[in-house]
Amino acid sequence: MRTSATIWFEPEGRKIDTEFGVTILEASREAGVYIRSECGGKGICGKCRVIVKEQKYLNDLMDAEKKHLTNYEIGLGYRLACCAVVKGHVVVEVPVESRVGDQRIQILGFEGAVRLSPCVKKIFVRLSKPTLADIKPDVERLLDYLNEIHNLSGLEVDYHVLKSLPAILRKANWDITVSIWNNKEIIAVEEGDTSNVSYGFAVDIGTSKIAGYLVNLTTGQVVSAGFVENPQLVLGEDIISRLNYAMKRKSGLNELQKLAVEGVKSALIDACKEAGVNPNNVYEITLVGNTAMHHFFLAIHPNYLALSPFVPAVKRSLDIKARIFNMGINPHGYIHILPIIAGFVGADAVADVLATGIHETDDLSLLVDIGTNTEIFVGNSEDLLSCSCASGPAFEGMHIKHGMKAITGAIERVNITSDFEVEYVTIGDTKPSGLCGSAMVDAVAAMFKRGLIDNKGRFNWQVETMRLKKEENEAEFVIAWGHETATGKEITVTQKDIREIQLAKAAIYAGCSVIMRRKNVSWKDLDRIFVAGAFGNSINLENAIVLGLIPDVPLEKVKFVGNTALAGAKMALLSEDARREADVISKKVRYLELAADPTFDDEFFKATYIPHADLNRFPSVGSILRDSTGKVFKQS
Amino acid sequence: MRTSATIWFEPEGRKIDTEFGVTILEASREAGVYIRSECGGKGICGKCRVIVKEQKYLNDLMDAEKKHLTNYEIGLGYRLACCAVVKGHVVVEVPVESRVGDQRIQILGFEGAVRLSPCVKKIFVRLSKPTLADIKPDVERLLDYLNEIHNLSGLEVDYHVLKSLPAILRKANWDITVSIWNNKEIIAVEEGDTSNVSYGFAVDIGTSKIAGYLVNLTTGQVVSAGFVENPQLVLGEDIISRLNYAMKRKSGLNELQKLAVEGVKSALIDACKEAGVNPNNVYEITLVGNTAMHHFFLAIHPNYLALSPFVPAVKRSLDIKARIFNMGINPHGYIHILPIIAGFVGADAVADVLATGIHETDDLSLLVDIGTNTEIFVGNSEDLLSCSCASGPAFEGMHIKHGMKAITGAIERVNITSDFEVEYVTIGDTKPSGLCGSAMVDAVAAMFKRGLIDNKGRFNWQVETMRLKKEENEAEFVIAWGHETATGKEITVTQKDIREIQLAKAAIYAGCSVIMRRKNVSWKDLDRIFVAGAFGNSINLENAIVLGLIPDVPLEKVKFVGNTALAGAKMALLSEDARREADVISKKVRYLELAADPTFDDEFFKATYIPHADLNRFPSVGSILRDSTGKVFKQS
Repeated sequence: MRTSATIWFEPEGRKIDTEFGVTILEASREAGVYIRSECGGKGICGKCRVIVKEQKYLNDLMDAEKKHLTNYEIGLGYRLACCAVVKGHVVVEVPVESRVGDQRIQILGFEGAVRLSPCVKKIFVRLSKPTLADIKPDVERLLDYLNEIHNLSGLEVDYHVLKSLPAILRKANWDITVSIWNNKEIIAVEEGDTSNVSYGFAVDIGTSKIAGYLVNLTTGQVVSAGFVENPQLVLGEDIISRLNYAMKRKSGLNELQKLAVEGVKSALIDACKEAGVNPNNVYEITLVGNTAMHHFFLAIHPNYLALSPFVPAVKRSLDIKARIFNMGINPHGYIHILPIIAGFVGADAVADVLATGIHETDDLSLLVDIGTNTEIFVGNSEDLLSCSCASGPAFEGMHIKHGMKAITGAIERVNITSDFEVEYVTIGDTKPSGLCGSAMVDAVAAMFKRGLIDNKGRFNWQVETMRLKKEENEAEFVIAWGHETATGKEITVTQKDIREIQLAKAAIYAGCSVIMRRKNVSWKDLDRIFVAGAFGNSINLENAIVLGLIPDVPLEKVKFVGNTALAGAKMALLSEDARREADVISKKVRYLELAADPTFDDEFFKATYIPHADLNRFPSVGSILRDSTGKVFKQS
Repeated sequence: MRTSATIWFEPEGRKIDTEFGVTILEASREAGVYIRSECGGKGICGKCRVIVKEQKYLNDLMDAEKKHLTNYEIGLGYRLACCAVVKGHVVVEVPVESRVGDQRIQILGFEGAVRLSPCVKKIFVRLSKPTLADIKPDVERLLDYLNEIHNLSGLEVDYHVLKSLPAILRKANWDITVSIWNNKEIIAVEEGDTSNVSYGFAVDIGTSKIAGYLVNLTTGQVVSAGFVENPQLVLGEDIISRLNYAMKRKSGLNELQKLAVEGVKSALIDACKEAGVNPNNVYEITLVGNTAMHHFFLAIHPNYLALSPFVPAVKRSLDIKARIFNMGINPHGYIHILPIIAGFVGADAVADVLATGIHETDDLSLLVDIGTNTEIFVGNSEDLLSCSCASGPAFEGMHIKHGMKAITGAIERVNITSDFEVEYVTIGDTKPSGLCGSAMVDAVAAMFKRGLIDNKGRFNWQVETMRLKKEENEAEFVIAWGHETATGKEITVTQKDIREIQLAKAAIYAGCSVIMRRKNVSWKDLDRIFVAGAFGNSINLENAIVLGLIPDVPLEKVKFVGNTALAGAKMALLSEDARREADVISKKVRYLELAADPTFDDEFFKATYIPHADLNRFPSVGSILRDSTGKVFKQS
């Protein structure tokens, strides 16, 4: 009889084999997945919430769970990890709010497995002391040793490190640890054996947020995460306004750069503090971002990127001394900036491909990284085509009346019952303050399913419910009444909010349609759809299809992969192979300029309908509608 | 019948073929050797003084020459270049004071011929403009072009240059010039075709002086020279006192570095001003200096160099971005620091070997680079042995009562007639202010030949002459009476001055003796003796032998080669091959620690005699003595 089972933790895809009888919380620690628990696993704090959709190999709900979880949450598969005991293979989804580290935001992403071979290697060396009979100079003594013992030839020594070498050698009695970058250059020398004190920082500069992992380079483990709002937000909410800022003001570019660097630095410092790591022991940063962020960070003028023919300054990956940016890590370490693909398909997109591995398989994949700017890829190992579309920040909670980021207090899931009552889940299990992107997807889809809005997104005033009303001439639907919320004010979805969501999802769907037509493939040919970006894995897939955000394919083909941009940056931090792979991706992926495609406008217009003007493209939505109301909505 | 002749210009060894009937001044301009002439070659200013020892292929002296030259000078072979007409092969020596540029000091040195292949190359490129159909990024557009058209692959782009590229490309309408360093990195991009505007600076940081050539890298020609006193002199006159300064004060090393950098910078700025060159068009500096100067310049603590076992920090050549030193040249260019050999045989010594080529020939050579510290080499292409001795600054005019550097107003040649009268030549043809090193060699040798001093350097009071006297208890010999001098005061050689010269020459001769014994060769085995350093070619060879400064070998075996350290630095600036050669020299030359040799003290003591305690080592000096006085001096 079997007594051991495999537990998968999503979205990392990390798995561990464990004995029957352990709790999910215990298994998670063994797997290196860190789930919050303030009571130490006693069922008291209720913080260790996880989602298990298929619960046949778990024990029944315990009282503690019934106390901490709502019925709606229980219906969604929520459990407390400290109460759920394993008795077979289980897939566990760890929601954002239950993660140790930064609980506010989804910064984890699916990533491919890599062989641990970081670009920075630390080696402990014991040198013989010079004598009158052996007057070999210090640098040659060290380099000859590294050549003879470690087969490292042709190494250079950073000038600043070279200056410090003689004193350190003697202070350390000739036992030192050297940090070698890219098998090329000695970037640090330290007294004694510090070979296991080696860290790197992988960071994604998003238009709205900057998120990074602090990674132990000797184990490959993430030790902490850092997250800040992109400080550039004060100079413009979206890329276009920041490009304008850079182009219209003399010091604009320098301001944008300074803010980007400050943002990365503050994410780094947070992560170092949390993990108790000395920033001087961080030797490398791998950095991704869209092409505009890439140019801003590098202080490269984006004039020519913003104007036709939209030419970036540089495509290849770059390695720049950290001290040039006063980056806050070891000054003689490096920043590795991943390569970009084209005008608006940046290093973040290269990292998406790297993390999902869609360039390595024969399967035909569609990859959509949803953000203020959405990047789309279609193809396989033979050929990959990419494009980019401006989808706006609605899915990140911006331009939405009660929108907010997916932080504590944000409603992240919404359901509307057949009698128009509303059920919702709030991040952090607190009183709600607003709606994040995934809640907007749920809300709009649910309103459509319940007939509260028609396929053009207009409110249906024939539905009788107190929740549908006009306030100061603005039509809205109430998600949470004032007495339920943190602010005491109602949280609603307005007519204008619905329009914003329609425009955003239409841009994304139209981008997918055009690129697939160019690639000459149809939805049916797709083997996999990867959805990356802000939503993480908290989006409800069925609702996304109802909304017409993603195409109507069998659910099992769709995989939410979270922040694959950051995951790809982490792979490049841990693996020289992954870094080379990124360079290959950058060169190999073809680029399609959507603006130049004559069919885009028409596709966009048709995609503003819910789910789409052409319902044949969404056969499953028709059936859902019939299930919920008994008849197909009138297509006005 | 022949109508053309070859003119050699020394000490550069530059030669030119010219028609009979041209003046030396005309020929010099064609040869790129720049001789002063304020009157434009009319025989009026008398500045274009040159020395031609063998005058049979020159016209007779003209009246202008008789007017401007003393009989003593005429006897030494002086001519005015504008009056001397060529009618056959002639060897012309251009003295320091007649050189255009810095007339104050001998900065030229013998150098080997090199194939012009500077490390910095400028290439003009015309790129195609991007279009919507060709959106290749700027950097890739440039690098692909350089790869396809110039076969330059794997180039990197300096980050600061990369930042400026997009704007420059468009401003220049896609016609730009790139500067490529070491076939490795683009260090500059400029609008339009500036491919012939490319300069480098070769510099020698001496303990007392810093001298540099500004060189046109497209022609290989020196366009100007810069010279300054080493500003470190304020912190100590010799190496030992500066090492102490660095070791005993916290900020000492930084002060020394700052001064070294300032010195190089000011020599560079002088040279750029003189030649009208924009320092931004200087892309590389090649730098030599003894090991202490090398460490000071690099701000590497010299503690371990100064203390047993005297280990330098680094031996290999280094390439450092100019901006790190704020060097005053193009900030993205490089400083190439030539390799050293050992503790006190530095990059200047490597350059000496490079310039003289003693490592390439089967001939057995002795190379002596005389300075405050004197480096000595013996050997050939099979094996070279080196050592270093502290000879002090006496030959540079320091520690001598009326000593001065070889600048305008310094007496540089001295003769004492049989009736004890004194003839002398002054640099710049002015009233004298003091005695430079070569005058001291002449003076002491002449005093010995005339019996004014004995072989222990003591004054012989039996000689009757007003010039030999005691002033304030100090014994001295008058070289110039008060009415002859610029200051109105007498210029004398004191008993103490003679001791200083004896100690200096003894150190050098003893160093030569010991290293030759170690190499197991005798004076007779030597094919060539190269004398480099401060003296330039202004020293009188016979007198140097009489003094016992250099060994008694046939005169034709001795070659004065001037500042070969700087000449070697220039070769490394002009030729990648020379640079590689320097690296080979650094590795190949063996080092002998004189301090550890038990025979040195005895050799030193014996060498304090004039010419030497063992007169058998100087047979030719015995014969000179007999010629002048009729009998051999009593060897007391």
